Amino acid sequence: MTLHESSLLTRTLAAIAPANHGARAKAKERLDQLAIPHWALGRLMDLALDLAAITGSLHPTVNRKSIVVMAGDHGIVAAGVSKFPQAVTLEMVRNFVIEAASINALARQVGAKVTVVDTGVAGDLSELAACGKIVDKKIAPGTANFAEGPAMTREQAVRAIEAGIEVAQSLGDQTDIFGTGDMGIGNTSPSSAIIAVICKYSVADVTGRGTGLDDDALANKIVILEKALKLNQPNPQDGLDVLAKVGGFEIGAIAGLILGAAAQKKPVVIDGIISSAGALLAHSLASQCKDYMIAGHRSAEQGHKIALDFLDKKPLLDLDLRLGEGTGGAVAMNLVEAAVAILTEVATFEEAAVSQSS
Amino acid sequence: MTLHESSLLTRTLAAIAPANHGARAKAKERLDQLAIPHWALGRLMDLALDLAAITGSLHPTVNRKSIVVMAGDHGIVAAGVSKFPQAVTLEMVRNFVIEAASINALARQVGAKVTVVDTGVAGDLSELAACGKIVDKKIAPGTANFAEGPAMTREQAVRAIEAGIEVAQSLGDQTDIFGTGDMGIGNTSPSSAIIAVICKYSVADVTGRGTGLDDDALANKIVILEKALKLNQPNPQDGLDVLAKVGGFEIGAIAGLILGAAAQKKPVVIDGIISSAGALLAHSLASQCKDYMIAGHRSAEQGHKIALDFLDKKPLLDLDLRLGEGTGGAVAMNLVEAAVAILTEVATFEEAAVSQSS
Repeated sequence: MTLHESSLLTRTLAAIAPANHGARAKAKERLDQLAIPHWALGRLMDLALDLAAITGSLHPTVNRKSIVVMAGDHGIVAAGVSKFPQAVTLEMVRNFVIEAASINALARQVGAKVTVVDTGVAGDLSELAACGKIVDKKIAPGTANFAEGPAMTREQAVRAIEAGIEVAQSLGDQTDIFGTGDMGIGNTSPSSAIIAVICKYSVADVTGRGTGLDDDALANKIVILEKALKLNQPNPQDGLDVLAKVGGFEIGAIAGLILGAAAQKKPVVIDGIISSAGALLAHSLASQCKDYMIAGHRSAEQGHKIALDFLDKKPLLDLDLRLGEGTGGAVAMNLVEAAVAILTEVATFEEAAVSQSS
Repeated sequence: MTLHESSLLTRTLAAIAPANHGARAKAKERLDQLAIPHWALGRLMDLALDLAAITGSLHPTVNRKSIVVMAGDHGIVAAGVSKFPQAVTLEMVRNFVIEAASINALARQVGAKVTVVDTGVAGDLSELAACGKIVDKKIAPGTANFAEGPAMTREQAVRAIEAGIEVAQSLGDQTDIFGTGDMGIGNTSPSSAIIAVICKYSVADVTGRGTGLDDDALANKIVILEKALKLNQPNPQDGLDVLAKVGGFEIGAIAGLILGAAAQKKPVVIDGIISSAGALLAHSLASQCKDYMIAGHRSAEQGHKIALDFLDKKPLLDLDLRLGEGTGGAVAMNLVEAAVAILTEVATFEEAAVSQSS
């Protein structure tokens, strides 16, 4: 399939430009003069530079925070790659809607709004969609089992990414900063597969215990993913092919959300391994979108570090989180606020009349 | 000097009891049942247990946050251990008062109140004290140069610690959680000395560049501290002796703040290397106060890790901060809020009607 020139995806990719290096330089000039030992706020100052570059402003605004939880199911759970039954995806969407899940609690703490998107849950969520509790972008009730063939068609892959772009667009006028989140039983499997293909690592290197597999189940998961990659032969140079062959609807939608945020020149905080798989797909389609990504945390899932290293992103937090839902990104948004406070509220030596060092 | 039985310090030490292990066990029981893969929020869940134990509650409150910046000067700056002139301590206190410093910005971000205490600034702050902008606990206008003799008398050491206890008491009825902060040009030198003595490391192992020393100045600082320890011979078993011989007024006051928080069964977030030196002193006087400490971050100063390891505390953040003022602790308070949210706002499998794993 060739993308039509006027398609949403094509237009979005074309709209993504590098971050503003002039604003970064000006922010550095100010931060160099703050009334503190030079760069003594370390990585929060690095982050402040990134935020200036992303927004093109020395006064970045990050007040209005949207965490988008993309939900979808996975045919590959039939192969026994998860400890939890598939029904949990649907049940957790309901848990998000009643605001009783971890992401609700952590989003509240940082003052973020949670938007839940059905990209492909295997179950009926039409009532929740009808009353506006979730956004309906359902592509199909779960992907096909990619242990037996492609997870989805190339058209569906495009549709998944465009779903994410659409959500970014519709939230755009009420959002200063995005956070990516996911819900999908089995989705560390497609994520590991995507990371293995794009970062060119073995499946064993990038595959972890997900929600808590024991040694035997982990070994089984690795064998299944190795066979699936051999069967599907995804092309590492073609993000759409990787998504279609071994991906997931919610992972494609996360990629789309990232692309949509980048096209709007807004920061997007990347959560754990599933979000990072989405980030790899987004990056493969428009490498400059990387400038707009902030790595929220390092997950306990081993493939996550590999994905972040590939993207040359150093995570802000390292708290052994391995939940997903966008939780790590939500917590990290506190640090984004802190970085903005440093850039916008701290006086320079001159402003504060403080003596400088010898 | 023997402490009088009725002294504030004696009474405070006697009031410090271990954290509530029953509440910790009950919190664990609840967290084990949350509708997430087991312990998938990692260290935030560990922190939630600590907060339950500290407060003795399954609904810990951390809304009212007090960051206390203890300021004091150091005779040892005469030996050339800092790049910045001593006047900066006073200038920075004024900067705190006009709320233009880093700690003001970062405290605002997390909703914390900043209290500035003059424990021994070499300069006149009486006007700011008179109008209530700072708390006056001045013991002397700076310590003596401990390269040439003890930094202070044992009476002054007791007074410094009691100053911190008094501040903890006076803020107690408006504070759920404390944060320690410091301002004092030259104060990485006494901090390194305290860490070397108590943790039994060489000066070279625990001494860093402070506000930005070059190689020669760092080597000079190490030689000065080695000679000072040889001259003063502080007794590692006696925290008051260590404080008197090679400490600082603000470091003693930080120790007092920690003891005061522990006596009130309230959490206290420890900032960087200076705060950790104060924590070591507090721990040497009442080891159970450790239960109430939360290590906010790992400083870029090398002695910090050694101090935290000695206290068996794993820092929450690792962001190359090396400023002090309480900044690392302020940022970490966001994570404390997140941990409380997990304990108090996330539904269990049963509450959320989510299926459990096999």
